[in-house]
Amino acid sequence: MRIFTEQELKQFVSLNSEAVKVVEDAFTSLSQDQVSMPPIMRVDIDDQNGEVDVKTAYIKEKEMFAIKISSGFFNNHLLGLPSGNGMMILINTKTGVPEAVLLDNGYLTDVRTAAAGAVAASYLAKNTIETVGIIGAGSQAKYQLRALNIVRKFQKVLVYARSAERAKKYAEEMTAELGIKVVAVDSAEAVVRNSDIVITTTPAKEPIIKAEWLHPGLHITAMGSDAEHKQELEAEVIAKADILVCDTKAQCARLGELHHALTAGVLTEESEVVELGDLTSLWGAGRKNDEQITVCDLTGTGVQDTAIALFAYKEMVKRNKGITIENNKILQKN
Amino acid sequence: MRIFTEQELKQFVSLNSEAVKVVEDAFTSLSQDQVSMPPIMRVDIDDQNGEVDVKTAYIKEKEMFAIKISSGFFNNHLLGLPSGNGMMILINTKTGVPEAVLLDNGYLTDVRTAAAGAVAASYLAKNTIETVGIIGAGSQAKYQLRALNIVRKFQKVLVYARSAERAKKYAEEMTAELGIKVVAVDSAEAVVRNSDIVITTTPAKEPIIKAEWLHPGLHITAMGSDAEHKQELEAEVIAKADILVCDTKAQCARLGELHHALTAGVLTEESEVVELGDLTSLWGAGRKNDEQITVCDLTGTGVQDTAIALFAYKEMVKRNKGITIENNKILQKN
Repeated sequence: MRIFTEQELKQFVSLNSEAVKVVEDAFTSLSQDQVSMPPIMRVDIDDQNGEVDVKTAYIKEKEMFAIKISSGFFNNHLLGLPSGNGMMILINTKTGVPEAVLLDNGYLTDVRTAAAGAVAASYLAKNTIETVGIIGAGSQAKYQLRALNIVRKFQKVLVYARSAERAKKYAEEMTAELGIKVVAVDSAEAVVRNSDIVITTTPAKEPIIKAEWLHPGLHITAMGSDAEHKQELEAEVIAKADILVCDTKAQCARLGELHHALTAGVLTEESEVVELGDLTSLWGAGRKNDEQITVCDLTGTGVQDTAIALFAYKEMVKRNKGITIENNKILQKN
Repeated sequence: MRIFTEQELKQFVSLNSEAVKVVEDAFTSLSQDQVSMPPIMRVDIDDQNGEVDVKTAYIKEKEMFAIKISSGFFNNHLLGLPSGNGMMILINTKTGVPEAVLLDNGYLTDVRTAAAGAVAASYLAKNTIETVGIIGAGSQAKYQLRALNIVRKFQKVLVYARSAERAKKYAEEMTAELGIKVVAVDSAEAVVRNSDIVITTTPAKEPIIKAEWLHPGLHITAMGSDAEHKQELEAEVIAKADILVCDTKAQCARLGELHHALTAGVLTEESEVVELGDLTSLWGAGRKNDEQITVCDLTGTGVQDTAIALFAYKEMVKRNKGITIENNKILQKN
């Protein structure tokens, strides 16, 4: 049993092209029926304004699979704590023995979520783009921009957040980090109308993006909604998309933007939805020309967790990192 | 974050009257709608003859709740390994922060399963009994007898297992341990006809106990079936019970003996089923006289896992056991 801490995972596991590739491959496996992925398990701690999700997926032939525990406790700010926490456990797929505990505190979720955004953009965004729009200015807004930077070149970034101050801080930080001009603007509309790609990264409960702002060639990735009550896009945005992609159709129909489009009746169960794994495994399932409007709805899947946990494990073990516990003794500490 | 190993958990967490009490209280909480318990999450690793279950439950007012991972890999014997493995994680119910990892390797599951058996027997078995029957001679067969010994006095134990050799070994070991005469017999029928309480602890896929062997005053606890294809009791055994108790009716109707009785049509969804938490919280829900035949169907619930994990945590922390990891450093090792 190996145990890895957040600090060393952040030090040695990067959001890079290999991380994007392992997440892409995981979606391909999902599309090819090589994955056993039960629905998300959820425990609501209503009296504390908290929720805990458990996600998992077994990818055939892989030597381990992950079980991920992630929590959101929305009164934590009153205690000066971040709302999100989490960890992953790797289980041996030949014996069922727990092999590793990754005390990543949500870091690997940030990486795999951003990696899925990059996969979506690489198949759905125009090849040549000028401006990227970011809605939200939190941690995932940064990771999404870093991930996009792996799969597309761009000259300018527009960012909008409810807090103008946070948007300004984001713009400063990301300009310095990426060496690309990042500018805070004062409305979501200004972002959408002037960008080739828009990524929404908020916990919004009311739509932020209106269908009337859409324009030819636009690609939107909405990664914020992962619960019934969350919504970033007007239902009509989904309806106007020439290609609508979901990480998994079943999950988006329950927890994502698709859910609201179905409820509003602008789409039906029979409407054409492409899954992310079809994009990565079927030739020609992505964008066909520079005029199409494309939307990708990401809710987060266990297969991404298994992919990133395996990637992290490999990176850590090859550097001989982590604490090893065997026969009830600590054998090694770093 | 504290990490406890199997060795120290076995050393300091005992199957005693307090363990039985915390499990009893957990069922009472469940019955009083003080528990949020989602259905079991299950990952099938079909190509390796393996399965992994995740169970959890939040008991209101408790400062932590457990998420338990348990696996059964039925080719492990080919590798010289036990089929079962497992661990528990305790999550803070105010903040969502993971507080402890219990690398118990299934030990705490053994304890909480046996404790539920003791709870059932304490409400359903006759007060004065002579002979206890055990079907199966594995680890849980031992724990169930130890647990029963906490709530009832008895003079003799009859044990039957498919392997006469294992039954004989069980008889020798348990005679030595409990100072009570334990005798291996050559049929399940001999066990049932001659016992006041029978506990079945097998992974049987075909019924072992026939209805024609039942007699007035008998109590049966069947704890083996926890999956659709497992069955220890003929459906008619369930139908003949004057009182039928399930740990949870919903789960037994899916995974337990009740499932087969419903499928066979000898019971219906409307048949009277008492839940274990009703026994522990409602006066007079248990055995009413020495003539009744009672049956308890146990499939194993997340609320037991949370109860036993909290009990174990308290026992370990008061002895200052475990490894503490804080700010990515090992602060203490035992």
